[in-house]
Amino acid sequence: MSGEDTPAPQQSEDQVQKGQPAGEPEAEPPQEPQGEASNEAATEAATEAATAATTEAEESQPASTAANDKAPEEEAFTYRALVLTGYGGYDKVKLQLKKGRPNPRSGEVTVRVKACGVNFPDLLARQGLYDRLPSPPVTPGMECSGFIEAVGEDVTDRKVGDRVMVLERCGLWQEVVLVKADHTFLMPEGMTYEEGAAFPVSYITAYVLLFEMANIRPNKSVLIHMAAGGVGIAATQLCQTVSDVTVFGTASANKHEVIKQGGVMHPIDYRTRDYVEEIRKISPQGLDVVLDPLGGSDTQKAFNLLKPMGTLVVYGAANRLSGQRKNLLALAKSWYSQFTISALSLMHSNKAVCGFHLGYLDNEFALISGVLQKLLHLYQQGKIKPRIDSTYHFEQVSDAMRRMQDRNNIGKVILLTEPKKEEPKSKEDSKDQKEEGQNDIKKEEPKEGVETEQPKTGES
Amino acid sequence: MSGEDTPAPQQSEDQVQKGQPAGEPEAEPPQEPQGEASNEAATEAATEAATAATTEAEESQPASTAANDKAPEEEAFTYRALVLTGYGGYDKVKLQLKKGRPNPRSGEVTVRVKACGVNFPDLLARQGLYDRLPSPPVTPGMECSGFIEAVGEDVTDRKVGDRVMVLERCGLWQEVVLVKADHTFLMPEGMTYEEGAAFPVSYITAYVLLFEMANIRPNKSVLIHMAAGGVGIAATQLCQTVSDVTVFGTASANKHEVIKQGGVMHPIDYRTRDYVEEIRKISPQGLDVVLDPLGGSDTQKAFNLLKPMGTLVVYGAANRLSGQRKNLLALAKSWYSQFTISALSLMHSNKAVCGFHLGYLDNEFALISGVLQKLLHLYQQGKIKPRIDSTYHFEQVSDAMRRMQDRNNIGKVILLTEPKKEEPKSKEDSKDQKEEGQNDIKKEEPKEGVETEQPKTGES
Repeated sequence: MSGEDTPAPQQSEDQVQKGQPAGEPEAEPPQEPQGEASNEAATEAATEAATAATTEAEESQPASTAANDKAPEEEAFTYRALVLTGYGGYDKVKLQLKKGRPNPRSGEVTVRVKACGVNFPDLLARQGLYDRLPSPPVTPGMECSGFIEAVGEDVTDRKVGDRVMVLERCGLWQEVVLVKADHTFLMPEGMTYEEGAAFPVSYITAYVLLFEMANIRPNKSVLIHMAAGGVGIAATQLCQTVSDVTVFGTASANKHEVIKQGGVMHPIDYRTRDYVEEIRKISPQGLDVVLDPLGGSDTQKAFNLLKPMGTLVVYGAANRLSGQRKNLLALAKSWYSQFTISALSLMHSNKAVCGFHLGYLDNEFALISGVLQKLLHLYQQGKIKPRIDSTYHFEQVSDAMRRMQDRNNIGKVILLTEPKKEEPKSKEDSKDQKEEGQNDIKKEEPKEGVETEQPKTGES
Repeated sequence: MSGEDTPAPQQSEDQVQKGQPAGEPEAEPPQEPQGEASNEAATEAATEAATAATTEAEESQPASTAANDKAPEEEAFTYRALVLTGYGGYDKVKLQLKKGRPNPRSGEVTVRVKACGVNFPDLLARQGLYDRLPSPPVTPGMECSGFIEAVGEDVTDRKVGDRVMVLERCGLWQEVVLVKADHTFLMPEGMTYEEGAAFPVSYITAYVLLFEMANIRPNKSVLIHMAAGGVGIAATQLCQTVSDVTVFGTASANKHEVIKQGGVMHPIDYRTRDYVEEIRKISPQGLDVVLDPLGGSDTQKAFNLLKPMGTLVVYGAANRLSGQRKNLLALAKSWYSQFTISALSLMHSNKAVCGFHLGYLDNEFALISGVLQKLLHLYQQGKIKPRIDSTYHFEQVSDAMRRMQDRNNIGKVILLTEPKKEEPKSKEDSKDQKEEGQNDIKKEEPKEGVETEQPKTGES
């Protein structure tokens, strides 16, 4: 996952047809938005076209397999992609059609994507809070699963038809992706595409937090925040692979039964209780390890909760996410209460503070790959298994993001590339969700992919 | 090594006889300083007596074995102790006679001390820069070796005659110490007293830095600052117990041959070279681990030298030591350039910063004890062995401190409790030292233990 890698390329883009419910993708080249679109939309489309052209030009330079000289049938090839068109609310992620078959160059493969994971960076990126995503228009998505559709030269360890998971800095929320072969990982037999899409980010993160950074060992105690989230569930499972690790986990009360079954010995409802007090009641001397995906003032609390020789691993800033759009108050609060520490304080308290973010781990693919191999071994032994909270089709990406941002999920939220089957309108939205809040969504939010409005650019 | 423990007690104290060269300790109760001493000395002696009385009163409270009702021969018992009489230069550590035989209470043992280690906190403490040492008058010393002279009730795993190492927060630079039995560790056969006094602080520190905090593993690279110091040499040896660890070490050029033999693959003369540049030449991508005993601006350099997933362990502030007395400029510089870091920066760089200081590790004796057992196992396998730089008698404590503070040592500087044999004055000082600078010392510094001046209190 080199930071210098071009994100999975976008050969050419078009807005998905407006004023028409999302369904099967068009086989025909989609209509150009100019002429019938407003000036604003025309400007946006022009920007996208320019970006696409630039991308294409850059790509064709190193390889002599000229993307410019595509055969007509390759040009006619289209695939669906989710595109962040500007920073803002859920409606900024739009379903679009891209055209032109991606041709793998040396060392690359084309993957036909079946399922994608949704992660917090994708949500932060939508609000303009994640600097690892290039400026819009851009396709988000750090992980997906699918099968190899074509292999470039010099690719010897992947073949057409191989079922793979993919990990990239971004660009994976689309039906077809072009990636370096060594950014793909063969899926073990029996692993579903949903599981494959749920696996890399959460499990690699959880593994590194626990075993590379916190050095977790028998008889240690761990606090896992957001214990019902993707990383939370992965971390809880991984803690079970070490003897006598005591897991404290925060989650809403309605999720306690599930996380308890997963191995959280002390579930704490952070919405109704002071989690610090609750933990001190059970373990007055504090904890050995705290995994912190929250940031802001929770990081200081985490640090204070550590025993001497304890380790805090910060791996997210979920507290910055408040509401659909960038919330300046939440940001300011998070910034104001940002945790900083001096070396002297660390020394006087005998504590460790680590930071981890997979998205910033450029050029460390050997490490990532090594970790994933260990994880696949554990998967095959039946010791870990992704928990899928819910699946959404690309058309429902707003609902998927909202479910995660509202922290209603238990496990991973997955996007399916397969077009949503049309069903009676009144029923369709409540099918995949186990909790509601959907009525509110309908009131507040236009549906992506089925919207009739003109697209907007920039902040809204 | 509980922070709440009383430091090794001082039953009663007297200034060592003035105007008389130090030699065998007096068997007779030493003369009272009042009357013949100056007012200043009388004040100091009175303060010490008051302190001693308070200490004794506090001690006699919990135990009914009344220290107050000592038999005359116990009262007549005297032993030599080094006492920090006030913050300042080398002359602030004075050799004194204490009287009254310490009686071990339940769980305690009396140790007849043979050798003591000198550590950086002892030097910082003399300048008033180490808050774990109680206010003067107080006996420094975190580690020593000797044999058990008496055991208190309920002590079943130690017996008179056992050869032990002792680890305490302070108070061990004296001929006789009273300590908790579980703060003593049986010395393996073949370990000399000098080695025993050189072992606990350096090896426990090095072990925790490398294996508890940095989680060192095969193929990692490590920078060890002050690689010829006690911890530096211990850390280098411990790195050899893991396969394919590349050790970079800073030290003056004249020490390179020795540290190279010990396992430092890339010795760097920090006095004549920019060590960051030198390391980047050899390892452009940086290092996995940096052990930092320096503090100040070197901590930031260390952090910058880390690879992604790298770990910085700060375990000292040697940069604050500049000159004999507290150097306000060095302190201000060290404070100004103090390293602080935000959780967000750690996350974006995927790095870890840990702090460790054995002196602040209260209530973690189980951990310390566990680590020491592992270390003794390695010692018995011949994999680690303390390197003694030099030994000094109590009378020569100034020279010992100076040797370390001037960073002339290669390995540990050890104090011997045994009185220094009298020799022709012109030769004696250069015997134990392998390097000089001794002529300068003679010009600048009065000799402790043989001084004829009146003691001074407070800063000077």
